[in-house]
Amino acid sequence: MYSYQYLTEFTTELFTKMGCSNEDALTSAKVFIAAELRGLPSHGLIRIKDYYDLWKGNRINMKPIISIVHETPSTAVVDGDNAIGMIPATRSMEIAIEKAKKVGTGWVSTRNSNHYGIAGYYAMMALEHDMIGICLTNANPLVAPTFSVSRLLGTNPVAVAIPAGKQPPFVADFATTPIARGKLAVSEKKGEKVPLGYVQDKDGIPSDDPGILKQGGSMVTLGGDYEHGSHKGYCMAAIVDIFSAVLSGANFGPFVPPSLAYLPLLEQKTGEGTGHFFGAMRIDAFQKETIFKAKMDEWILTFRNAKSAPGKPKVMIPGDIEREKEEKFRKEGITILPVVANELKEVAKSLGLNFI
Amino acid sequence: MYSYQYLTEFTTELFTKMGCSNEDALTSAKVFIAAELRGLPSHGLIRIKDYYDLWKGNRINMKPIISIVHETPSTAVVDGDNAIGMIPATRSMEIAIEKAKKVGTGWVSTRNSNHYGIAGYYAMMALEHDMIGICLTNANPLVAPTFSVSRLLGTNPVAVAIPAGKQPPFVADFATTPIARGKLAVSEKKGEKVPLGYVQDKDGIPSDDPGILKQGGSMVTLGGDYEHGSHKGYCMAAIVDIFSAVLSGANFGPFVPPSLAYLPLLEQKTGEGTGHFFGAMRIDAFQKETIFKAKMDEWILTFRNAKSAPGKPKVMIPGDIEREKEEKFRKEGITILPVVANELKEVAKSLGLNFI
Repeated sequence: MYSYQYLTEFTTELFTKMGCSNEDALTSAKVFIAAELRGLPSHGLIRIKDYYDLWKGNRINMKPIISIVHETPSTAVVDGDNAIGMIPATRSMEIAIEKAKKVGTGWVSTRNSNHYGIAGYYAMMALEHDMIGICLTNANPLVAPTFSVSRLLGTNPVAVAIPAGKQPPFVADFATTPIARGKLAVSEKKGEKVPLGYVQDKDGIPSDDPGILKQGGSMVTLGGDYEHGSHKGYCMAAIVDIFSAVLSGANFGPFVPPSLAYLPLLEQKTGEGTGHFFGAMRIDAFQKETIFKAKMDEWILTFRNAKSAPGKPKVMIPGDIEREKEEKFRKEGITILPVVANELKEVAKSLGLNFI
Repeated sequence: MYSYQYLTEFTTELFTKMGCSNEDALTSAKVFIAAELRGLPSHGLIRIKDYYDLWKGNRINMKPIISIVHETPSTAVVDGDNAIGMIPATRSMEIAIEKAKKVGTGWVSTRNSNHYGIAGYYAMMALEHDMIGICLTNANPLVAPTFSVSRLLGTNPVAVAIPAGKQPPFVADFATTPIARGKLAVSEKKGEKVPLGYVQDKDGIPSDDPGILKQGGSMVTLGGDYEHGSHKGYCMAAIVDIFSAVLSGANFGPFVPPSLAYLPLLEQKTGEGTGHFFGAMRIDAFQKETIFKAKMDEWILTFRNAKSAPGKPKVMIPGDIEREKEEKFRKEGITILPVVANELKEVAKSLGLNFI
């Protein structure tokens, strides 16, 4: 068990050793540890080694200058200067919030970035400003659009955080596929089959083998098949891709660069790096805050008190599970898989640090 | 077969007879006929009788004054004055576009409205201004959140229209359920079963009976069941509900008033009428238009040229099907179901008009 404070300090030190400024290193560390705290380790420390390898391979810029390349009162395009994704992502959300303070809402599309951890982290940055936060990103292509076997889309998540009053905030953060990529990888490592409706083989035949992705297979979009609305999941993933990459000038769809150093860079580019999209809407740009928050409490209680089907769990509000985990892990500490702890030890050692 | 011009004129005349101004009647007629042209008759003329009955029952305001009740440079809340939904919806999208012209983006949440037809119509209004258009609405509660049997959400659609260059625009318009309500109703009328994964009975057991909704059943969210990500469809439907109703002060979730005159008004209100949400983002608030449009063409061609699974149709771009239907129906005319034609004849007769 590790305290989140220790893990944050360690991760900060690690990135500092790789050449990041203290501020950038801390910014990155906070998002890595937020993933661990919220029970999403597939987006947490397991990715440190990936970033270390990208650094060793000269594939990432540790001294980035994040810049606004175009703006209006309510919008901006940000260039991430090929930084660790958390740095331009945090800065982009701050810009969205600053713009919302002035004109009610702020919208930022970001290019030349990299994998940024959990989308929900950035959406939640808006909450302390009494704003609704929105965050989208494109990602490595693994997902085929409806009817296709071509891997053209990432798991392209959508995160939306909405303040409430006495109730905890509503925080949705979900991939536009039936299951997240990380969960497939876990099943594969355990040698388990997965339910039909997650992946298909190279000919588009539904498969229960999570390893099929290494044999030309692909993930399907939310909905699963056309009969059950997979074209709606395809629409969502496409919208996320276009807002993140076409609006900003990043690589779209199949051209998103791999976030793993052992995969070669793609020959064809359609823009710069990975793309994200951020939004902030001031509550009082629409409604009096007190009225909105009271209504959100009413909304949340209405849904929390819904009748469950016999034998099913209680109806949850988006964000409940992650918040409960965060409360627990902040107090009790964070467990790290031995394989990840060993990776961290190795990385630490090579940088002249020590991971206990 | 009817020409869209005749149907537009007839519908305009009909609403004028019910007391609408010529302008409001034409505004409404355009959206009804757009649904027919785009091959979505479940949102078209079949709803005229519903509005006629609401008018006869004094449930709808034919002389509305649509007003902005609160605004910032990039946002507004609009009160629809209990009008035919198309009137405040069209006005709200115009306001979003006006704001985007000034500060880059415009966002409008609308209360005290009613059923507004197809969401895509309003999103597409942005296209001629070289803007991305977004439109959401809540709707009559028929959908249960994950694990629940309570009907707390509507089929809450999402529409996003994105301009392209030489290619036709990207126009996504989809319910956040596996299937639209109207398609279930058609299966029910034909006495057909539906695939499992659309509806459940009053105990949450999956059902293939589209009539189950009349026996305490409910629709499920996109994803179908928890294992296949129905909680992600629930998140989407919830976001649509909150943006449309909590931000504006409309009725949320289970409190959305019925859009059918034979259903009594609900005893409990949490706001005014039905709620919608509109967004407009100027392309050149992010990217040079020519660059964006060329990149969108590249995006569209990449997806159009994806490899289909053996035996499956070509990969489509959102909006393809509706655009092809519109081109055909504009030229060849629109077919109306005899039952709908008869309803229109009756309504016309009672208003001293004639439907041929």
